Amino acid sequence: MTLQAQLMQQLTAAEPEMIKIRRHLHAHPEISFHEEQTAAYIKAFYRELGVSTTAYGDGYGFVVDIDSGHPGPQLALRADFDALAIQEDNHLSFKSQNANVMHACGHDGHTAYLMVLAKTLLGLKNQLRGRVRIIHQPAEEVSPGGAKGMLAAGVLDGIDNVIGLHVMSTMPTGSIAYHLNATQTGRANFTVTFTGKGGHASMPHLSNDAIVAGSYFVTALQTVVSRRIDPFDTGSVTIGSFDGVGSFNAIKAQVTLKGDVRIMDETTRQTIRDQITKIANGVGATFGVQVALDYDDNYPVLMNDGDLTQRVITSIQAAQIPEITKIFDCGPQDPSEDFAYFAQAKPSTFIYAGCQTAPGETHPHHSPDFMMNEDCLLIAAKAVGTATLDYLMNTSSDH
Amino acid sequence: MTLQAQLMQQLTAAEPEMIKIRRHLHAHPEISFHEEQTAAYIKAFYRELGVSTTAYGDGYGFVVDIDSGHPGPQLALRADFDALAIQEDNHLSFKSQNANVMHACGHDGHTAYLMVLAKTLLGLKNQLRGRVRIIHQPAEEVSPGGAKGMLAAGVLDGIDNVIGLHVMSTMPTGSIAYHLNATQTGRANFTVTFTGKGGHASMPHLSNDAIVAGSYFVTALQTVVSRRIDPFDTGSVTIGSFDGVGSFNAIKAQVTLKGDVRIMDETTRQTIRDQITKIANGVGATFGVQVALDYDDNYPVLMNDGDLTQRVITSIQAAQIPEITKIFDCGPQDPSEDFAYFAQAKPSTFIYAGCQTAPGETHPHHSPDFMMNEDCLLIAAKAVGTATLDYLMNTSSDH
Amino acid sequence: MTLQAQLMQQLTAAEPEMIKIRRHLHAHPEISFHEEQTAAYIKAFYRELGVSTTAYGDGYGFVVDIDSGHPGPQLALRADFDALAIQEDNHLSFKSQNANVMHACGHDGHTAYLMVLAKTLLGLKNQLRGRVRIIHQPAEEVSPGGAKGMLAAGVLDGIDNVIGLHVMSTMPTGSIAYHLNATQTGRANFTVTFTGKGGHASMPHLSNDAIVAGSYFVTALQTVVSRRIDPFDTGSVTIGSFDGVGSFNAIKAQVTLKGDVRIMDETTRQTIRDQITKIANGVGATFGVQVALDYDDNYPVLMNDGDLTQRVITSIQAAQIPEITKIFDCGPQDPSEDFAYFAQAKPSTFIYAGCQTAPGETHPHHSPDFMMNEDCLLIAAKAVGTATLDYLMNTSSDH
Amino acid sequence: MTLQAQLMQQLTAAEPEMIKIRRHLHAHPEISFHEEQTAAYIKAFYRELGVSTTAYGDGYGFVVDIDSGHPGPQLALRADFDALAIQEDNHLSFKSQNANVMHACGHDGHTAYLMVLAKTLLGLKNQLRGRVRIIHQPAEEVSPGGAKGMLAAGVLDGIDNVIGLHVMSTMPTGSIAYHLNATQTGRANFTVTFTGKGGHASMPHLSNDAIVAGSYFVTALQTVVSRRIDPFDTGSVTIGSFDGVGSFNAIKAQVTLKGDVRIMDETTRQTIRDQITKIANGVGATFGVQVALDYDDNYPVLMNDGDLTQRVITSIQAAQIPEITKIFDCGPQDPSEDFAYFAQAKPSTFIYAGCQTAPGETHPHHSPDFMMNEDCLLIAAKAVGTATLDYLMNTSSDH
Repeated sequence: MTLQAQLMQQLTAAEPEMIKIRRHLHAHPEISFHEEQTAAYIKAFYRELGVSTTAYGDGYGFVVDIDSGHPGPQLALRADFDALAIQEDNHLSFKSQNANVMHACGHDGHTAYLMVLAKTLLGLKNQLRGRVRIIHQPAEEVSPGGAKGMLAAGVLDGIDNVIGLHVMSTMPTGSIAYHLNATQTGRANFTVTFTGKGGHASMPHLSNDAIVAGSYFVTALQTVVSRRIDPFDTGSVTIGSFDGVGSFNAIKAQVTLKGDVRIMDETTRQTIRDQITKIANGVGATFGVQVALDYDDNYPVLMNDGDLTQRVITSIQAAQIPEITKIFDCGPQDPSEDFAYFAQAKPSTFIYAGCQTAPGETHPHHSPDFMMNEDCLLIAAKAVGTATLDYLMNTSSDH
Repeated sequence: MTLQAQLMQQLTAAEPEMIKIRRHLHAHPEISFHEEQTAAYIKAFYRELGVSTTAYGDGYGFVVDIDSGHPGPQLALRADFDALAIQEDNHLSFKSQNANVMHACGHDGHTAYLMVLAKTLLGLKNQLRGRVRIIHQPAEEVSPGGAKGMLAAGVLDGIDNVIGLHVMSTMPTGSIAYHLNATQTGRANFTVTFTGKGGHASMPHLSNDAIVAGSYFVTALQTVVSRRIDPFDTGSVTIGSFDGVGSFNAIKAQVTLKGDVRIMDETTRQTIRDQITKIANGVGATFGVQVALDYDDNYPVLMNDGDLTQRVITSIQAAQIPEITKIFDCGPQDPSEDFAYFAQAKPSTFIYAGCQTAPGETHPHHSPDFMMNEDCLLIAAKAVGTATLDYLMNTSSDH
Repeated sequence: MTLQAQLMQQLTAAEPEMIKIRRHLHAHPEISFHEEQTAAYIKAFYRELGVSTTAYGDGYGFVVDIDSGHPGPQLALRADFDALAIQEDNHLSFKSQNANVMHACGHDGHTAYLMVLAKTLLGLKNQLRGRVRIIHQPAEEVSPGGAKGMLAAGVLDGIDNVIGLHVMSTMPTGSIAYHLNATQTGRANFTVTFTGKGGHASMPHLSNDAIVAGSYFVTALQTVVSRRIDPFDTGSVTIGSFDGVGSFNAIKAQVTLKGDVRIMDETTRQTIRDQITKIANGVGATFGVQVALDYDDNYPVLMNDGDLTQRVITSIQAAQIPEITKIFDCGPQDPSEDFAYFAQAKPSTFIYAGCQTAPGETHPHHSPDFMMNEDCLLIAAKAVGTATLDYLMNTSSDH
Repeated sequence: MTLQAQLMQQLTAAEPEMIKIRRHLHAHPEISFHEEQTAAYIKAFYRELGVSTTAYGDGYGFVVDIDSGHPGPQLALRADFDALAIQEDNHLSFKSQNANVMHACGHDGHTAYLMVLAKTLLGLKNQLRGRVRIIHQPAEEVSPGGAKGMLAAGVLDGIDNVIGLHVMSTMPTGSIAYHLNATQTGRANFTVTFTGKGGHASMPHLSNDAIVAGSYFVTALQTVVSRRIDPFDTGSVTIGSFDGVGSFNAIKAQVTLKGDVRIMDETTRQTIRDQITKIANGVGATFGVQVALDYDDNYPVLMNDGDLTQRVITSIQAAQIPEITKIFDCGPQDPSEDFAYFAQAKPSTFIYAGCQTAPGETHPHHSPDFMMNEDCLLIAAKAVGTATLDYLMNTSSDH
């Protein structure tokens, strides 16, 4: 039996274990950078296998190395394990036991499939070439996320490439999706405070109305996307919070606005930052209010390496995995993802496994009724496992 | 000794009592419609004088009637007795003993001078003509204030005219000020809620951004005063609260704005209301958001009766009261005042007694360090007392 | 017969002459600073009376002095004689014979009544005291108007006071109206040009859209009146011209806006100027466009001298002129008027004579169907004549 | 010698003729739908060859058919021949002889290369298969352009595919560029008029300021692109003309704005149209002005057929034409092009030939100093000729 056939057979056999692990994680979610029990649970799994783990970064992240003992390429596989501050709202038997915390984005599934895939690869490791580094990452959901710290600690030292996968409730279960090059948006966030002068609503001339300044700012901000971005580029600017809470009859001295920026091209990032800065200061000058702008360029655009992505997809296609019924280019995806930092560091690819519960059913990520079809776990394991095997065995490398 | 001379002499002698009362009230402030202890204290004062009090309205308001037993006119004198939800910030010996409640607008002074004036007039009552009704009103600071309820209960039945007085920390102590006709602004308040559709900041086209709608509303609202009001009229429109508090990366589904309107002419009131309604609905149509507008026309313009005001001021001028060093037309005043309801019901006048602590010193009304020069108490008592006496003795009336 | 009785009698007799003069002027209107024939016609009138005229200023303006030969006060009476660039649209027998020029503001009437009043006073001059200077002023309708040049040339040297009168089609014929102090608005005008960068509509990011900058400027400008002016003050700011004429598919590089400012208080003038300057520059900074602001403070607020105005009105009231059925305070008037320059130079008063054709009829000033009830001519002559006589005879003066 | 070799050799030999024709056309430009002399000149060229022309449409457009007499596919080649209303500003010997008209977009080049290519193909026609229809189109520069009328008249009846080519001064001479699928933007234009009420600048409350309404409309319009378009889609909305020309002191009653819309996806077209309509009406409701919106959906998105485009490019690549130094995917192009109508009717492709005068030199299309490197003419003829030959000879077709 070929190595690939062995891998497929063993993963099929291990599907119940994946589901069991995923349900345990789902029932015990922990928010970003507080995943103490989660990390302990995963480490215990590896400890039982007699495999050591190595911590990286300032959170609960760690890696497991699967070293074939033979020369060959160095590949990392990454899964994230944090949950969200959301109260789960459904009737699952393995519903979250922690109030206001929920695995509402599928990271429980990422971790479960990758643990079982790691275990399987460990069993086959003498037949492999090179090395696979399994990265269990904390805190993907907050900025700056867990990836940055792990990278700073050297988690990719000596690694050639990285593969990540996200389950997607918007895509049919059975599908594997990908996109070349710019795949998920980059992001910036900013806070701007306008400070005028408070006073009584009956005497506006003695005050300087910060709500008025803030409102004109919001209207002027629309021109960043409408006039300053190439219509063929991607950019969005949102004010998600306008805090001008006050009373009927007092003129508000200060307002604080929080904004979000999305891009698909790092050169657009600077254009938008420059424009927002100019508009904030210009509105300050126009209305005579003080301006404090705190601008945070955070997640980069997730740039999938074209060659690696093509190769991974070609491996999966060639394997003719029966559970995988569709492989397609899903185009760029709106949300940002801190896997982008791995992709900045090494040629990487981030692919998707559909997990829709049933055709037409909607369980959006980050919603209290997020749900996945657990068939996606085996599919993810087989897809990433296949790509890994092909990569290890057929990459010429002088490591 | 003339009656006027007796009144002046007795008031001068009673100055310490006014100050004592004022300081007691100052130390024990109660917020609007919660003035239980305040009312009890004032009633006890009258009870000791053997005078009965009669409740009017739904709050703690009441009146004391000083009936001369002779035919003559029926005059009401009004003082308010509520305090504000402000934490006093000074080092007065009689500083507020109630946390977060403060007599920061001088109503303690109004009540103190009027109690002592009432006591004095009671002592002289057989020499008077007609009747004086002393009105102790609660809840001037909230809308709808205490005046409305007392009026509904008939507090001015049979009354010909009403005099009120406010101490003013913006005017020099020693001054009495007045204005004819429209004297303090009328007011309206409104709440408008725009409801769009929430969503993720990276997908604005799937949402409908309520912060954007609210901001354009604020900018469009500026045209009410700039384009729709006669430049010779008075109008102001303020958004005092813009509640669009949210997070960086979510598009806000709903914002709630609170606004304040001031006018000096009741016909302007409707113009502004119509425009705000039109703009709110127009912004709703422009951005496809739902609009809920709750509009409350509350305090009327305070219309001083020209003849009565002239007469009161002439009486005070003629009396050549040594403590009164200046009598002047102060022009219209920005704030609104629920004495306006009395002035709507009967020809009335509302005058001002300067209470500035010293030239150049600023202790604004409604601020935590509001302070008065207590000399204003005697001045107020003498000014209103003189006007009352002249009015009672020299008004031909067939009551 | 008293001097006043003689004056009244002679003016009544001269009414047909006033009407004849007014109709001649009406039929032969000339626009501001081009009143060559008009001035020649008036001068010919005085030449026939054997009276010399003296030119002042850079236009066709001149004066006639009526010197009593006796000591006494020095009073100037002023009438303007220019017309407007409007095509008359009515069926009057004396309709304008000059295409696109029309006496649509009543200056023909001002000049006619004053010429006949001057003639009458000349006939009585030996019985008068002091001196009356008749000022025939050109170019009231343009900025800077004819008054400024005449003043610079010394037209008021030695003069104590000035009286002016305007006919008003908004007021009933038979009425004389006045206001104390600030009586007509002051004015400023400005031109602002925003220069961005032109380009093709399909590539906004390579251009900088001046129409967008200009539009945000207009919206921000609304806050000058809505937020920066005391609600009890008067101010208006209008953009009367927005020249952004271009084509569908090119982004406009430059727009030019023209604005008008009105005030009733010279301190407000600076506030508005400062704010407009700040907003123009702020919008420039916000959108990265160049800003060129040309700001012209022109007509002052017309400040009627309180004492002189009271005195003039008292004289008119006392005279009990039968044609004058109503004398009233008309409040401040919106338009600006270059008589304001005379009033800046000397204590002056500017009063109004109603000239409505009939109750309920509307013939607005500056409209193609402006019309006056010519009864106003005699009324104006009698009112100003009476005031002049009283002033001359009863002003103690050591000239 | 192969047919391809013959074609290349003959085109090389004919280069001087192409240049001569192009310069003649350049010196005698005519604006869209007025190309009478231009069409006559081209027809004379064909007449001399003994070839008949057939008119199509309502302009000066016509076709020449090159019928091989053998079965085979039916291919159309299209060139446009109109010029622009621009005054040429350069020192070329063949500069425009017509004032204010200029071939500033290169249509002279399109026509010149296609005439000579047609002549060459005519000479080889017995060796060809199928039929080539040469389309000489008028009026590409105006909406609705010349394509629409020719199509309505049946110019593509029986035609299988169409090839067009545009010279591009932004691309290096020697390059051939292409893009698959959506290649040039679709367009809409609109005119919106807001009608308020005029009046005097000193009395805004009696008027309704159309400049204010128009300006708020422009600011609100920015939200169409910033909030209503998917950030991954393409859309632009420009107000290219804001006609609010008036005077300083009159409030403007009416403004007229002209706008331009660009899209790359026909579903976006309706979204934008709906939003603009909603915003125009919403602004009307907000400010109480009348709204007249005239919306014209004109040029479609130019959709290059993927298969045909690939095939054409493959033919050109395979031919290894020495003058062609670079073949690349240039991505989508901002401008709209009425070739889009041909592409709507039949699977078509529109490709580009670089014509930059020298590296780094800028002579933008539609500018008074537009210039081309005339080497592009031969390149265009060889590229389109090669693609045509390969298409004709190697397309199985049952026509």
